[in-house]
Amino acid sequence: MGALLDDLATPFLYVDLDRMNRNIEAMATAARELGVRLRPHAKTHKIPEIARRQMAAGATGVTLAKVSEAEVFADAGIDDLFIAYQIVSPAQLERLTRLSRRARLRCAVDSRAGAERLSTAATDAGIELQVMLEIDLGIGRTGVRTGVDAFQLAQRVADLPGLKLIGIYGFRGFRAFADGAEGREAWGRAEGEALVSAAADLRAIGLPIAEVSAGSTPTALPAASVRGVTEIRPGQYLFGCANVVAQGAMRADDVALFARATVISRPAEDRAVVDAGSKTLSTDGSWEPGCGFGYLASDPSTRVASLWEEHGVLHLEETARGLQVGDRVSIVPNHVCTAVNLHDRIAVVRDDRIEATWMVAARGRLE
Amino acid sequence: MGALLDDLATPFLYVDLDRMNRNIEAMATAARELGVRLRPHAKTHKIPEIARRQMAAGATGVTLAKVSEAEVFADAGIDDLFIAYQIVSPAQLERLTRLSRRARLRCAVDSRAGAERLSTAATDAGIELQVMLEIDLGIGRTGVRTGVDAFQLAQRVADLPGLKLIGIYGFRGFRAFADGAEGREAWGRAEGEALVSAAADLRAIGLPIAEVSAGSTPTALPAASVRGVTEIRPGQYLFGCANVVAQGAMRADDVALFARATVISRPAEDRAVVDAGSKTLSTDGSWEPGCGFGYLASDPSTRVASLWEEHGVLHLEETARGLQVGDRVSIVPNHVCTAVNLHDRIAVVRDDRIEATWMVAARGRLE
Repeated sequence: MGALLDDLATPFLYVDLDRMNRNIEAMATAARELGVRLRPHAKTHKIPEIARRQMAAGATGVTLAKVSEAEVFADAGIDDLFIAYQIVSPAQLERLTRLSRRARLRCAVDSRAGAERLSTAATDAGIELQVMLEIDLGIGRTGVRTGVDAFQLAQRVADLPGLKLIGIYGFRGFRAFADGAEGREAWGRAEGEALVSAAADLRAIGLPIAEVSAGSTPTALPAASVRGVTEIRPGQYLFGCANVVAQGAMRADDVALFARATVISRPAEDRAVVDAGSKTLSTDGSWEPGCGFGYLASDPSTRVASLWEEHGVLHLEETARGLQVGDRVSIVPNHVCTAVNLHDRIAVVRDDRIEATWMVAARGRLE
Repeated sequence: MGALLDDLATPFLYVDLDRMNRNIEAMATAARELGVRLRPHAKTHKIPEIARRQMAAGATGVTLAKVSEAEVFADAGIDDLFIAYQIVSPAQLERLTRLSRRARLRCAVDSRAGAERLSTAATDAGIELQVMLEIDLGIGRTGVRTGVDAFQLAQRVADLPGLKLIGIYGFRGFRAFADGAEGREAWGRAEGEALVSAAADLRAIGLPIAEVSAGSTPTALPAASVRGVTEIRPGQYLFGCANVVAQGAMRADDVALFARATVISRPAEDRAVVDAGSKTLSTDGSWEPGCGFGYLASDPSTRVASLWEEHGVLHLEETARGLQVGDRVSIVPNHVCTAVNLHDRIAVVRDDRIEATWMVAARGRLE
């Protein structure tokens, strides 16, 4: 018999195991039905035990952002890794080539300088690295622009020794709400269409683009519905969070990750202060203006209205004004990825009992 | 001979040791000259080695937010601790009373329910706990309102067994910029005056208010200039950050804590992407609207315009457009407390050499 949820000192994060398992199954089933491979982004959880569950449900492998993060998953036996991130420093490139000896590995490129560095590292190590070209999908971050820039870079990657161009990927995310479910679906389809079109252009000049990888929790399934998309990389779908719910990408009843907190102060009728602040929930804002930093799971109209490092200030709607000093509450954070990243471990809960504790093994793996 | 700054894989945080030492000395000197005790808030650094330096420079002790955090400092031999936070859960109260056997300890109260819980814990343990009453300074967080509420609560604390009322404290911070240095100083003096007035009111009904504790980096010195303030609790002053500089509370040349990052992508003339995102810098916003998430130390007009978990997007002013893929830069984060909290360790640098590595020993100590 495990401890009870409320035996643990607050604040802490816990996962509702049954909900998480259902979310993992649902995405795997949807990907299978749409005929795409699923390669979840593990930055959301950073927990090898969860990656194993995702693979058992049918995922091809996992996506990661950093070499050090990928090493943690390789150490745990997850051996199909896509580092969807530009690795450009010599020392990091050396770690990358070492990692490629013990895991199937895909790398990312979006610049000529980056491609040349990757090529040098691969040839120095006497290996070949599989390369995905990142396409700029217009969000003002990384990626090469479609058209001439993409042609030239793809051709350069194909020509460089030690590199094997295997596909393209992009990230577009979704931060708008006004258009509702239809807006999100149209946005996701446009992502898929942009990638499929970019792949067709590159194939037309003879380049071998086998993989066309799209995704993010809000856009993965609409993108996957576009013929020619071969892979999706959603991250947050297994936990959910306030922003994913607000996007309409998940139902509130499917959210599986919560912060458990205690009311430490009750200074006004409409205000309760809990011991979960920005060091527990993260400061990531709401994509809905004015919606604060998360909501009370038992009463979603009650928001974390303001946040300090160790204080979450709840603006209490009438329904929540019975809260007293010492009461415990569960809070849904705005952004689950940055919240999990603040914790060494999460409690695994079923029916208010703690069944296990999972270490967030890749937390702090930044390099 | 230590390693060089650029031998370490990015991203990471480093402290400029000479600057930090100067900042520690300067605040200690200013407090001494104003005749107040200095009890720095250690949430900023969470590093016992730094607390020892603060004590060596003249600090009375340290301030903390959580019991688990205080335990780390007690373990390291720092034995004068003020937990400026309401501890209300039975298990946490038990840890608090255990801690009081090995360190001089001050506790915080802002509610009748909290005071009664503290009293029960103290009497169960057969000890007396020193109590500071938190006064609400109008920021909409914790604290008891001055006037009748404060009278009644202070009297209750004084009457409860196991508790000894020793003083009051408050936190007001400073988030406004428009008024410049004069605005900040007036704001800080008003903080000191409000606390001194609240203390006088409580003394008038016979309550023994010896300590009147104010502070925060932007307000500590103006508050300390008010006769009757006895202690200040600034945190960020030893490192500084973009928000503290923007407040005019520190000069840019005194900032001592930086994120070291590498340019991983250079997708447009005015855009460079570095490997330090919200998991390195934190998402804490700028208190100056439109100022992004930090600035380039070598060119403060270049801002981190947008932030993703592992991407910082620099909007490059003309002066910074020579940046290339693979180049390294130093970034000043918006808020140093939440940035440090994301890291297991920080590098200690003097003249571009790494002299030591300090573990952020109390990181993740949330309960």
